[in-house]
Amino acid sequence: MIYLDNAATSFPKPERVYTEMDKCMRDYGANPGRSGHRLALQAGRAIFKTRERLCRLFNIDNPMQIVFTSNATESLNLGIKGLLRAGDHVVTSSMEHNSVARPLAALEPKGIETTFVRCDSEGMLDPKDVKRAIKKNTSLIVVTHASNVTGALMPVKDIGALAAEKGIPFMVDAAQTAGVYDIDVKEMHIDLLAFPGHKGLLGPQGTGGLFISEELDVMQMKEGGTGSSSENLAQPALAPDRYESGTPNTVGIVGLGEGAGFILDKGTAAVRKHEAELTGMLLEGFGEIGGVKIYGPKDPKLQVGVVSANILNGDSGEISYILDKSYDIATRAGLHCAPLAHRTLGTLEQGTIRFSVGLFNTREDIMAAVKAVGEIAAEIR
Amino acid sequence: MIYLDNAATSFPKPERVYTEMDKCMRDYGANPGRSGHRLALQAGRAIFKTRERLCRLFNIDNPMQIVFTSNATESLNLGIKGLLRAGDHVVTSSMEHNSVARPLAALEPKGIETTFVRCDSEGMLDPKDVKRAIKKNTSLIVVTHASNVTGALMPVKDIGALAAEKGIPFMVDAAQTAGVYDIDVKEMHIDLLAFPGHKGLLGPQGTGGLFISEELDVMQMKEGGTGSSSENLAQPALAPDRYESGTPNTVGIVGLGEGAGFILDKGTAAVRKHEAELTGMLLEGFGEIGGVKIYGPKDPKLQVGVVSANILNGDSGEISYILDKSYDIATRAGLHCAPLAHRTLGTLEQGTIRFSVGLFNTREDIMAAVKAVGEIAAEIR
Repeated sequence: MIYLDNAATSFPKPERVYTEMDKCMRDYGANPGRSGHRLALQAGRAIFKTRERLCRLFNIDNPMQIVFTSNATESLNLGIKGLLRAGDHVVTSSMEHNSVARPLAALEPKGIETTFVRCDSEGMLDPKDVKRAIKKNTSLIVVTHASNVTGALMPVKDIGALAAEKGIPFMVDAAQTAGVYDIDVKEMHIDLLAFPGHKGLLGPQGTGGLFISEELDVMQMKEGGTGSSSENLAQPALAPDRYESGTPNTVGIVGLGEGAGFILDKGTAAVRKHEAELTGMLLEGFGEIGGVKIYGPKDPKLQVGVVSANILNGDSGEISYILDKSYDIATRAGLHCAPLAHRTLGTLEQGTIRFSVGLFNTREDIMAAVKAVGEIAAEIR
Repeated sequence: MIYLDNAATSFPKPERVYTEMDKCMRDYGANPGRSGHRLALQAGRAIFKTRERLCRLFNIDNPMQIVFTSNATESLNLGIKGLLRAGDHVVTSSMEHNSVARPLAALEPKGIETTFVRCDSEGMLDPKDVKRAIKKNTSLIVVTHASNVTGALMPVKDIGALAAEKGIPFMVDAAQTAGVYDIDVKEMHIDLLAFPGHKGLLGPQGTGGLFISEELDVMQMKEGGTGSSSENLAQPALAPDRYESGTPNTVGIVGLGEGAGFILDKGTAAVRKHEAELTGMLLEGFGEIGGVKIYGPKDPKLQVGVVSANILNGDSGEISYILDKSYDIATRAGLHCAPLAHRTLGTLEQGTIRFSVGLFNTREDIMAAVKAVGEIAAEIR
């Protein structure tokens, strides 16, 4: 199987992720932060280690400002809904995933207005358009770091500088970049950073996180046992306890810590170089096949390892099925949970076939994918 | 290590839980419900299998009415906040965990009133008191199935019948009973059943679920990508997609499925018999030690495998520490995230030392615990 669905979930993972998760389950699968016995303390230390590693990756000072969630979607919901109040205005882009667009749509009837800044037909966002969209009551700018449909990188540094200048909280959806691209919350002026654990960070599904700047008062989404201030019916006020009610996903967080450790050891520059090389091969290979349309910037410097394409008017779902069935190549077809992005690209009807590379893909994988698409295109033409 | 902290997280797990989780990570750790390739479909089937097994355990007809969450706390927040509206009244008990009490406290300023029905000094709840607490605007009755402090079993069947008679939705927190006690949502008239995956169901941390009766309209807590109705900015209306935004915790749910499968194979009656025997030994053993005060019903027929005790006025945290350090026995001390329960029992200052048995504990474990407590009590006296 050639796995080119890394934008959904990276696969496989580094061996140390598997090994440490199994060790956690078998050796120290106790309840962290509640009981005081040795196994519980070991579990608690393992969770803290993951916080520290994520801090190193994202240049975050205080590990306690990293809140663990079950995925980036939960992180985005927590940040967006926890911050916004009736009467607020939000600026976002027309390339957002449903994990941003749907919470914002749900807030509309509650008196929170959103401007979706239009990206160009490649899915690129102009910071000047963001600036123009800002109103007096703009209380949040939230954008994806890179489109999950075209891979297009958004100018987060410029938008961050703009947000800082205007004193507007800035949130970034790093679903497609965390672990691969350099993210520096200080340099980029990011106040809320939502990230999944199971994509570029190479951890297991069921993990994600939200960095919350100490300067923001974000309302929690759930209350419950936190192992702290137990005598009190009010939720503790301090992060991360305020946001982490109930038993955490220790085994998942341990796996995420190993994935992050692997990335730190290797360096994001090396990860990015590898993925950019494969992305370039895909773009070049597809570009030479008649009838193949590629969406997005078509330049590995302007995009992550996500390439969306169509073959003439062929059904994206059917072609993805043929790739799986006849070539053993795993891709994703359809709308990729991002209807706004497909409207921007004009692919709301056809969807796209998405090829997304990962750290463990090889040049041979890419050559096989290009060959397969060439054969299918020849059939259709 | 003698592990007597199973009420926090059961440990160890059946071998099949470890094995299948590792297999999932290594062999089919792809994204279920989105992509259509073979690995993704395999992941999707594994998740469905877990839904089916949970249905068999709880006598639920439609697997799609089981919603996966990250823990019982999330399930309780989802059910409570998703159902209640301003002007509603809730009836609950004075033995609730903070995972029920804190969300209800957070709803108070939003115009939702709660009556905490007082349990007796053993932590037992009288259904007649529940009946008396019902008002015209009572929109939910929510009770724990068994106290996490004393183990006291609540009369959920009687309360369910009462709720059905009055047409009031009935929610049960099965944190201490799922996998051990027979739970039949039809017979017990349960409309919302919140359960953790990592306790009696023998799954990993990071898992839990909520059964939602098809007759209830429960508002989702998060919106996002669901892999369904992707063209639409509105959240899909149907369970489970409505409530399961973002990539699910496939590896965790797979582990939970194996835990549930293990319980189904063994039968809850056998699990219960074993735990009741060990609980009886604990109660009898502690009962014979001078200076040891046991809280709760002190009868394995009236309680789950949770025994809370104190030794004279000894600090519960210190004694728990000695049990760990000198006897290699893992317990939990303090308030157990349930201040209301401690107020009911009169242990808000001292807390309690909680011994909680699990399926893999042996008679030898219990004898060692009784001996250790005897020695510590002799020291203190």
